[in-house]
Amino acid sequence: MASNSYRNRGILRIVFLFTVICKIGAEYNNPCCSFPCENRGVCLTQGFKEYTCDCANTGYYGDHCEIPTFWLRIKLWLKPGPYTTHYLLTNFQWMWNIINNTSFMRNFIMRSVYLVRNSVIDSPPLFTSGHEYVTWESAANLSYYARTLPPVPRDCPTPMGVKGPKTLPDVELFRKFFVRTKFKPDTINTNVLFAFFAQHFSHMFFKTDLKKGPGFQWGGHGIDVSHIYGPDVASSNKLRTFQDGKLKYQMVNGEMWPPLLKDAPVTMTYPPNVKPEDKLGLGHEFFGMLPGLVVFSAIWLREHNRVCDVMRIEHPEWTDEQLFQTTRLIIIGQTINIVIRDYVQHLSNYNLQLFFNPELLFGYPFQYQNRITVEFNHLYHWHPLMPDDLEINGTKYTAQQYVFNAEMPLKHGMKEMVDSFVKQRAGSVEPNNHPENTIHVALETIKHGRELRMQPFNNYRKRFNLPVYKTFEELTGEKVLATELEQLYGDVDAVEFYVGILLERHVNGGMLGQTVIELGGPNSVKGLMSNPICSPLYWRSSTFGGDVGFNLVKDSTLQKLFCMNMNGCPRIAFSVPLNDDGKTDSMQDEL
Amino acid sequence: MASNSYRNRGILRIVFLFTVICKIGAEYNNPCCSFPCENRGVCLTQGFKEYTCDCANTGYYGDHCEIPTFWLRIKLWLKPGPYTTHYLLTNFQWMWNIINNTSFMRNFIMRSVYLVRNSVIDSPPLFTSGHEYVTWESAANLSYYARTLPPVPRDCPTPMGVKGPKTLPDVELFRKFFVRTKFKPDTINTNVLFAFFAQHFSHMFFKTDLKKGPGFQWGGHGIDVSHIYGPDVASSNKLRTFQDGKLKYQMVNGEMWPPLLKDAPVTMTYPPNVKPEDKLGLGHEFFGMLPGLVVFSAIWLREHNRVCDVMRIEHPEWTDEQLFQTTRLIIIGQTINIVIRDYVQHLSNYNLQLFFNPELLFGYPFQYQNRITVEFNHLYHWHPLMPDDLEINGTKYTAQQYVFNAEMPLKHGMKEMVDSFVKQRAGSVEPNNHPENTIHVALETIKHGRELRMQPFNNYRKRFNLPVYKTFEELTGEKVLATELEQLYGDVDAVEFYVGILLERHVNGGMLGQTVIELGGPNSVKGLMSNPICSPLYWRSSTFGGDVGFNLVKDSTLQKLFCMNMNGCPRIAFSVPLNDDGKTDSMQDEL
Repeated sequence: MASNSYRNRGILRIVFLFTVICKIGAEYNNPCCSFPCENRGVCLTQGFKEYTCDCANTGYYGDHCEIPTFWLRIKLWLKPGPYTTHYLLTNFQWMWNIINNTSFMRNFIMRSVYLVRNSVIDSPPLFTSGHEYVTWESAANLSYYARTLPPVPRDCPTPMGVKGPKTLPDVELFRKFFVRTKFKPDTINTNVLFAFFAQHFSHMFFKTDLKKGPGFQWGGHGIDVSHIYGPDVASSNKLRTFQDGKLKYQMVNGEMWPPLLKDAPVTMTYPPNVKPEDKLGLGHEFFGMLPGLVVFSAIWLREHNRVCDVMRIEHPEWTDEQLFQTTRLIIIGQTINIVIRDYVQHLSNYNLQLFFNPELLFGYPFQYQNRITVEFNHLYHWHPLMPDDLEINGTKYTAQQYVFNAEMPLKHGMKEMVDSFVKQRAGSVEPNNHPENTIHVALETIKHGRELRMQPFNNYRKRFNLPVYKTFEELTGEKVLATELEQLYGDVDAVEFYVGILLERHVNGGMLGQTVIELGGPNSVKGLMSNPICSPLYWRSSTFGGDVGFNLVKDSTLQKLFCMNMNGCPRIAFSVPLNDDGKTDSMQDEL
Repeated sequence: MASNSYRNRGILRIVFLFTVICKIGAEYNNPCCSFPCENRGVCLTQGFKEYTCDCANTGYYGDHCEIPTFWLRIKLWLKPGPYTTHYLLTNFQWMWNIINNTSFMRNFIMRSVYLVRNSVIDSPPLFTSGHEYVTWESAANLSYYARTLPPVPRDCPTPMGVKGPKTLPDVELFRKFFVRTKFKPDTINTNVLFAFFAQHFSHMFFKTDLKKGPGFQWGGHGIDVSHIYGPDVASSNKLRTFQDGKLKYQMVNGEMWPPLLKDAPVTMTYPPNVKPEDKLGLGHEFFGMLPGLVVFSAIWLREHNRVCDVMRIEHPEWTDEQLFQTTRLIIIGQTINIVIRDYVQHLSNYNLQLFFNPELLFGYPFQYQNRITVEFNHLYHWHPLMPDDLEINGTKYTAQQYVFNAEMPLKHGMKEMVDSFVKQRAGSVEPNNHPENTIHVALETIKHGRELRMQPFNNYRKRFNLPVYKTFEELTGEKVLATELEQLYGDVDAVEFYVGILLERHVNGGMLGQTVIELGGPNSVKGLMSNPICSPLYWRSSTFGGDVGFNLVKDSTLQKLFCMNMNGCPRIAFSVPLNDDGKTDSMQDEL
């Protein structure tokens, strides 16, 4: 009995020891899980319990890179904060009128915008979704999206590091925050033309390779206009006529439209019910899906062929190949110019008149390379922009009627389509404004964020020099949603990236939240200005076939893009027209 | 009869007209064929007969970009010419002793070397072999080698533009200039270790994709150490043990050697007669070919595994993956450091002590991206370095005996191999010094140059701010070869690129000609310093796992690379040792 009791005690002791070891094992937490390093300092583990913050080349020092160096301190003291900057840029119209008309001031401020925005982007990129630390792959493996912040380490107490619940709330619980109850129009009168421009433009570089996983992509990491010319040389060749540099097209009612798929057999994704005579061959495999994407595909196709004609007169000695290649460079330049001048101008709501001039960056340490980040992709999911129905010249089309209805724009003609897009208001990117048929995309984006172990929303605010939100109410700007969110996360520091992006209150008088602007702005400016054509040896007239081509780049506007390529010239803009009483037509409708 | 005669006259007239048209057609010459634009100005045709030079952002103006702007004129006036610079750098040992020991002067000069060398490289690159003008492909299509100068236009009077013969001389005629008559040792006592280092190192980025053509490549355009870890992740995985970050190996006579191919089944190219037990699995498919490549593969393998051990002590908390990835970054840093400190130092023959410090470039407009050019690849063909036989510890191996004899280094052991490589002199890269079995490579390189329509040798001299050679004698530095060359080309402006590279006289006291140095130097500096690890956010200790790892990068030398990884520490250097009388052993042999 005694020996038995000893044996039992011995077994008990072993079991106890084993439990302790397992417990220690289970409780080993990477000391970097609390994200202790500030100001782009890098957290490095030192054994199982310790860490150090590497502050080198950040401008900060101290154990957690929390102390700015003397010169940086002065710079920070002089520099207005993000709220102030935004307020200055969106008010004081009289001051901006002076600045916009004084070239040296305008140049100075525009250069500052380029440089300040660029300064928060890592180039070459430091992280991908593959590792939580810098690897050779970060810079070399282009099949990854880059990451602004590395993934949360695997061995952390909670999915968000150390904050929030052990298990994140079921994604389905977020549906109620997104679902559109009543259509809420955008507050700065953004129209549907803007929504389709955003979609058409951004799908050139947001190309998630879901076969490999949400951290991978199959694009060219920038403004390569692959959405017009196809993703590779083989696709381009299928879209080309090989005469006078032009792209294939079909004429319908005297207007130029993209060719039928059978005549330009690129890879396209159509559902089986689409008839062959309604399938178009386009630069992006998904662009047959929405009439707005067909409209933009058509207008760029027309512009390409128009530029070819202009360049052929300039250069009768050129081959088809040189006409095609040079026109493509001109189209890249025009795209960047229109995005800055018209698209970002509208989006930012700035009173500063934005413009595109690569020369402002010559001589500055600026990297002419770009990498699309996974965060930029996620924050650009703006499905609430889409109204429930499209109204084309009096005819209402429901989503069921317009999705994969590539025939529709050809029937209405360019003028009716564009005119209608300009006059219809887009939705506001805010809670409870997702069209029913796109909610699954929002929920999936949250899921991807989890799979990619993205850091919390507040960490991204820190990374982009924004104050963290201390309460849920501060984040949402109201109480009901804030309370519900708090029940889900417990801690505002545990709010997930995309959830924060979608539910953050808007900046005063703006169409988006501050975090979208402060993360999206730099990624956008960097992507636009780091294009090879902006580098000093590219940015000269010979690259674009001489002064005529160079001016086609420099003078391009959204208005011209349409008006040079259609009958008549209606009002072309990214906002709905105001009536004499300062209200929009759509507003009238609502009243 | 009369009507017949009229008809005949009419036919004659038509024939005449047709002939004239054909003649005009045949004689249409692209006006840019004469390469009229100076100083990196771009020639742009304007119709069939006219051209303009685009001088924008070159610092020059005038019809042919021949006039420097005021500030540039002053800068040029102050700057010593290439001959003077080279003379200064390779003489005045007393002055360099002072500079080398005065850190601010040394830093200043080293930064100038980085910046001056970088300033002549196009980044992003402007040209590929696909087009004679800038296209989107130039920057975006990485499967091309870049081009420093675009191809000669297709529609030119001669293959070299307007100069030289209508048909270039038969390539076989050049054999007599290359064939080794008597082994001529290199003039600055370069040894075989250097030759193998050059070959091992440069094949990481010189990877011509001959299936696509001589303008294409399959590498990563820089120092990616893919010659150690394989060209892609799948190959790396085959070479990894997945334990403690280490690479696979085999132990032979107590020494670590690369694994057998059957144990690391990467893609390798061996002739059928090599026995399976003699086939090694290496980072580059051709590295089983020469014993020197096996030696360098082995020493880097040992270094990788040694660094893993060091880092594992530093970071017991790290996974195999983090150990592997961080060690790879350390190996990249060591490679760059050793190349600058030991390899380029020897090659340049400079009295300035070269060193690797990325911080010197922080804040300067320097592009952290690189593209290997086809010209860099061609000029790096230095087969004359190779002696006819290898002498390993008294045993002579003929080429037949050592080619694909991977077993040989394992049998002799590292120490015997390295000791012998250090003591054997390499050949001089000069006319009539190609080993018989590599002449076909030189001839093929000339052929590739023709297929790629490479511009004449003198055009490259202009492009790199060197005076053009006015006579053949000036080029070769002697008379016999000059006369023979003149018979082949007629005009010194028609000498082909690679022919000029191989037959140019050496700089005083140097191992190469001026053009190789002035083209290779910038390409080399750019490739080394533009590596992502040199960019401000990478170049900090955390990237390399902390100070210990960072110091492994900063303190690396060729001597350490070997001595930390073999028994004993013989003299390791890129020159043969001098005896007491200032002569080398090999010199003694010759006397």
